[in-house]
Amino acid sequence: MTELTNYCLKIAQQAKKASAEMAAVTGEMKNAWLAECARMLLERKQELMAANAKDLAAAEQSGLAPAMVDRLRLSEKTLKEMAQALAEIAAFPDPIGTIMESTIRPNGLDVRKVRVPMGVVFFIYESRPNVTTDAAAICVKSGNAVILRGGKEAIHSNVALGQILSDAAAKVGLPRNAVQLLDTTDRGAVDEFLHLPEYINVAIPRGGESLIKRVTSEARMPVIKHFAGNCHVYIDQAADYATAESVLVNSKCQRLGTCNTAESLVVHSEIAPSFLPRLAQALQARGVEIRGCTKSCSLVPGMLPATDEDFYREYLAAIISCKIVDSLEEAIAEINEHSSGHTEAIVTKDIQAARQFTTCIDSSAVMVNASTRLNDGGQFGLGAEIGISTDKFHARGPCGINELTSYKYVVFGNGHIRG
Amino acid sequence: MTELTNYCLKIAQQAKKASAEMAAVTGEMKNAWLAECARMLLERKQELMAANAKDLAAAEQSGLAPAMVDRLRLSEKTLKEMAQALAEIAAFPDPIGTIMESTIRPNGLDVRKVRVPMGVVFFIYESRPNVTTDAAAICVKSGNAVILRGGKEAIHSNVALGQILSDAAAKVGLPRNAVQLLDTTDRGAVDEFLHLPEYINVAIPRGGESLIKRVTSEARMPVIKHFAGNCHVYIDQAADYATAESVLVNSKCQRLGTCNTAESLVVHSEIAPSFLPRLAQALQARGVEIRGCTKSCSLVPGMLPATDEDFYREYLAAIISCKIVDSLEEAIAEINEHSSGHTEAIVTKDIQAARQFTTCIDSSAVMVNASTRLNDGGQFGLGAEIGISTDKFHARGPCGINELTSYKYVVFGNGHIRG
Repeated sequence: MTELTNYCLKIAQQAKKASAEMAAVTGEMKNAWLAECARMLLERKQELMAANAKDLAAAEQSGLAPAMVDRLRLSEKTLKEMAQALAEIAAFPDPIGTIMESTIRPNGLDVRKVRVPMGVVFFIYESRPNVTTDAAAICVKSGNAVILRGGKEAIHSNVALGQILSDAAAKVGLPRNAVQLLDTTDRGAVDEFLHLPEYINVAIPRGGESLIKRVTSEARMPVIKHFAGNCHVYIDQAADYATAESVLVNSKCQRLGTCNTAESLVVHSEIAPSFLPRLAQALQARGVEIRGCTKSCSLVPGMLPATDEDFYREYLAAIISCKIVDSLEEAIAEINEHSSGHTEAIVTKDIQAARQFTTCIDSSAVMVNASTRLNDGGQFGLGAEIGISTDKFHARGPCGINELTSYKYVVFGNGHIRG
Repeated sequence: MTELTNYCLKIAQQAKKASAEMAAVTGEMKNAWLAECARMLLERKQELMAANAKDLAAAEQSGLAPAMVDRLRLSEKTLKEMAQALAEIAAFPDPIGTIMESTIRPNGLDVRKVRVPMGVVFFIYESRPNVTTDAAAICVKSGNAVILRGGKEAIHSNVALGQILSDAAAKVGLPRNAVQLLDTTDRGAVDEFLHLPEYINVAIPRGGESLIKRVTSEARMPVIKHFAGNCHVYIDQAADYATAESVLVNSKCQRLGTCNTAESLVVHSEIAPSFLPRLAQALQARGVEIRGCTKSCSLVPGMLPATDEDFYREYLAAIISCKIVDSLEEAIAEINEHSSGHTEAIVTKDIQAARQFTTCIDSSAVMVNASTRLNDGGQFGLGAEIGISTDKFHARGPCGINELTSYKYVVFGNGHIRG
């Protein structure tokens, strides 16, 4: 075995041991750790800033784009926000040990489905250092041990943050190794961990599509993926115009680069002649370029024609595709064909149309008269999240504390046996 | 593309199309299909028996073990049982569309977590033909389209059964291709399907360990695995003797070859001198061989010594390993180290011991004063099951109708937008 293999194996074994100890850790202790981490983030600001300065210097030297350098930067403000996020996670109800379902069987057997931690989480993420504390906090709150692997651009900041997470654990008595941050930037380390399903229960990549694809193809354990989205807003023939404009504009323009931003507009042909020119104007006034199907272009002078590929695109930019359909059924088919299964919205006053749309659209969230931007753990009241899953297995939609748990059946009898 | 690749791709595409249609199928129609299948099973008995006779003849000719030939055999009795199983699945509440959780957010946004089908299930199983109808029924009840791939020993029986499933679908109007049974025995077909994650949402192998391993390593989509179990019965120092004997004997002897049968006995050293000789006698009287640790052997004259490997074994036979421990903590560590995470039981009158055991044991079911044999979908009131999962991701423990579903968020607003 190479030195790297040994290093990774040891960390994975330590995590598994810590996860067994985590099974009996109280919510009180997890919250004490969160509070201590938050306190230390502010107390040890100088140390964190100094480490961060090294990352920033290296980033500038290597010619990283200014926007990327900005994402790396820690400031008094970001540290306060990070501490605040930990406090919010502490305030979330403890999920572990709660009874999700229970039945008393006719023979008196008491069957309970109880929420338990997943075990060991391997979290791989890119450059923003606040993800280090967020991810650690969510994993620990849900009773897991976590191995954190940040991006190499943030290595000094992350190691300093990891030290705080460990020091806080030692101080409050959280199992040693419940939180371990890798101090190597060797890319091979990621594959080593992804090949250890006997120690790691789930891998979670957070970052660009290439990271997620690489992790998914290498992992021998389950992966929670949060791909970005090609989200649709469908304006039904029974839509109210003001609601249509407000939901569409918010879905597209409230923030351009997020996974729940609308990238495709679908309009019913009955109302397109009256609605589409005004909707186009509202978008164009906000600098959004519209690429339309032939019918759309015929209704809006100067609209650019869309290619077939446009209807599959996630622009993450001030562009939206637009298609006119002749029925709700056609809208549903159009959306299920092109969507990435993230978030789709319908604007309608017709209850039957809303019911059909919500039943037939196969996405993590289906919004009725509400913006696609609302598909978010915080907005849904699920607390902090590590992303929005477009999978259908285990976790779908916002992935928060509960989504990092499993369950077991705890069964009480009085000497019950099988006849 | 080869002919086989084309055949598999076409079936997978048809399944995906059918699964989209299944989203809007009512529970009434699914139940009508189950009833029609049950009726046809009995009505078309001759046709099924004739097909089954071909499989039986081939099996005998190829020298298949008599027990295996028996598993293949269809009779009036097995057909009635198969029809009865379909009726029981029909009687189970329809899971699709039910609201699992819901919140009204402070701003009035109405967020609902709604149960939906998983999509397309690829079910790979070995020789028993009754699995064909069971699996199809569970998948359809949970709103999925299913591709069935049975063992080659049962191919004629399965094709005849598949014809009934399809005829019943056509008769009641269930989407064409909601149930497709592969009529090829080409082993390559399995790999073809396992490489089509864009059409298939989950693969479920049911059979021996080699089948499950092969499917797991080839699959590019999630797999629900039901490995067999090395289940433990722990007799605590605070156990009542009569309960200990009855739970142990039932766990080990009620049926030898099942995954929830006990394979390991763990006894607290305080009560071992008084309990173990009597427990050993009870097991030996039922023909069970005990392989013990050194301490166990010293208490029971003639007990065979266990090797280290014995404590990991799933015997599926009249053998059990036995270890004496000095504390509850040691019992928990011993069990978590050797168990396969299936089912473990504690016998105790001590509530604190029961709480600690159920909190710290990391298995799909933890039984207190109840037989390991009770970890079963029927016994737990979960209805028909396709197996018992030892995974912690998505489904754990008995895997029934609900475990073949996913969810989505359905969100209602009045023009809600993100601020």
